[in-house]
Amino acid sequence: MIIKLINSPILFHLPIIFIGINFRSIKSKRKKDIILRKNKIRVGSYLYPMPVVIIGVNVKDKPNFMPLAWVSIVEYKPPIISISSHQGHYTNIGIKENQTFSVNTPSKELVIPMDYCGLKSGKEIDKSDIFDTFYGELKTAPMIKASPLNLECRVVKTIELETGHDIFLGEIINAYSEDKFLTNGIPDVKKMNVIFFSMNDNNYWEIGDHVGRAWSIGKSYKK
Amino acid sequence: MIIKLINSPILFHLPIIFIGINFRSIKSKRKKDIILRKNKIRVGSYLYPMPVVIIGVNVKDKPNFMPLAWVSIVEYKPPIISISSHQGHYTNIGIKENQTFSVNTPSKELVIPMDYCGLKSGKEIDKSDIFDTFYGELKTAPMIKASPLNLECRVVKTIELETGHDIFLGEIINAYSEDKFLTNGIPDVKKMNVIFFSMNDNNYWEIGDHVGRAWSIGKSYKK
Repeated sequence: MIIKLINSPILFHLPIIFIGINFRSIKSKRKKDIILRKNKIRVGSYLYPMPVVIIGVNVKDKPNFMPLAWVSIVEYKPPIISISSHQGHYTNIGIKENQTFSVNTPSKELVIPMDYCGLKSGKEIDKSDIFDTFYGELKTAPMIKASPLNLECRVVKTIELETGHDIFLGEIINAYSEDKFLTNGIPDVKKMNVIFFSMNDNNYWEIGDHVGRAWSIGKSYKK
Repeated sequence: MIIKLINSPILFHLPIIFIGINFRSIKSKRKKDIILRKNKIRVGSYLYPMPVVIIGVNVKDKPNFMPLAWVSIVEYKPPIISISSHQGHYTNIGIKENQTFSVNTPSKELVIPMDYCGLKSGKEIDKSDIFDTFYGELKTAPMIKASPLNLECRVVKTIELETGHDIFLGEIINAYSEDKFLTNGIPDVKKMNVIFFSMNDNNYWEIGDHVGRAWSIGKSYKK
C-alpha cells in the first residue's frame, strides 16, 4: 500500500513540489532582503527636503514675485546662488531685462501671500502691492521687507536648457536681515521660522528638532 | 529769580536739547521701522533650509561617498538634478571618469555615517565599506541600500566655474525606494524621516509640523 502510494504519480511529485515552493520562498525572501525591498519607482524630480524662496524681479519697472523651490548655492567665494525657472514665467522676462533678481526667505507667517503668488502669473495679475518692498544697490531687484532674509543678486551666468527651464546664476552682492533673526551675526533657521517644501505631494513644512552638528557628529562613527 | 533762571545759559538751552533729542529719537524710530530694522549683513552663501544628500560615485572602480548640500532640481521633463561640488573633491574625479553619480537621501538614522563621509576625503580614506551598496542600470553609480531614496543619474551637462566649483547636471534615469517610505507611490518626507542642513552655523535638523498645501493655502489670501 505504502509502496503503491509512493509510486503513484501524485505522491511522487508532491515532495518535489513542496521542496520547490520552499526553495523559491527562501530564495525570494533572501533576494527580497538584499535587493527586492528596493523597488524602482516612477522617475521624478525628487529632492527632499526642498527649500522654498520668493523670487523678486522688476518687470517693466514694477515688482513681481514668485515662489520657487529649485534653488541652490553653487559657489562660496564669491557667493553664487542658482535658480531654475521655466522660460514661460513672467519672472524670467524681468531677470533677462535687468540681469538682477532677489531671493527672499519666507518665514512661516509669509506662507499664504507666498503661495498666492504661485497661483497666478504676473502676466495675469499685478503682484506689486502684495508685499511692502525696498530696493538696494542694484535698484531693480525688489525685496520683501517682512522677509527675514533678503539676497540681492546680479546674474553672472544664464544656462538656457532646451527642455524649458532657464538656470540663472546670481552673485549675492548684498544680504539684508534684522538682528532678531541672527545668532552671532548668522541667519538662524529657528529665529527666522523658515519653512520647506516637499515636491510631488506639494506640502509646506516647519522645521523640527536639532539633530546634530555638521562636520562633528560623524566623529562618533564606528565601523 | 525765575526770570534769572530762564535767562541763564544752561536753562535756555535745555529745552532745545530735549527737543533735539526727542526729535532725533522719533525720527530714528520711524526710519528704523521703515528701513533701519533691515541691516546689511556679511554677504554669504545663505539659503535656508538646505537639503543634504549623499553623493555616490565610483573612483577607479571603488564606491566613494560625500555629503552635499548644494543640490537642486533644475528640470521636470526629463527630471534633471544639479549638484555643485568643488573641483578639489575626490567625488569630481569619479563623476568626470564615469559621467554618472547617485543622489542618496539620508534618513535621520544615517546622519552619523553621512557626516563621517564629510570629515575625510576619499583621497585619504577608503569609504567603500561604510554603506551596503547596490548598482543599477548605469553600473558606475553606487547607491546606498539603507537610504530611503536613491536617484541614479547620468551627467548631461557640466559647468566648470572659474571660481572653483563644478556644476553637474544629472538626468535622473532611475529612482529606487521601498513601499514603507511612499504614500500613493510618492516619497513621503515623514516616512523617510529626512533631515536638512543649515549652512554657516552647520547644523542638521529634523522636519517639523505640516504648514499647508502648496498651490492651495494661498487661495485664502486677502489683500
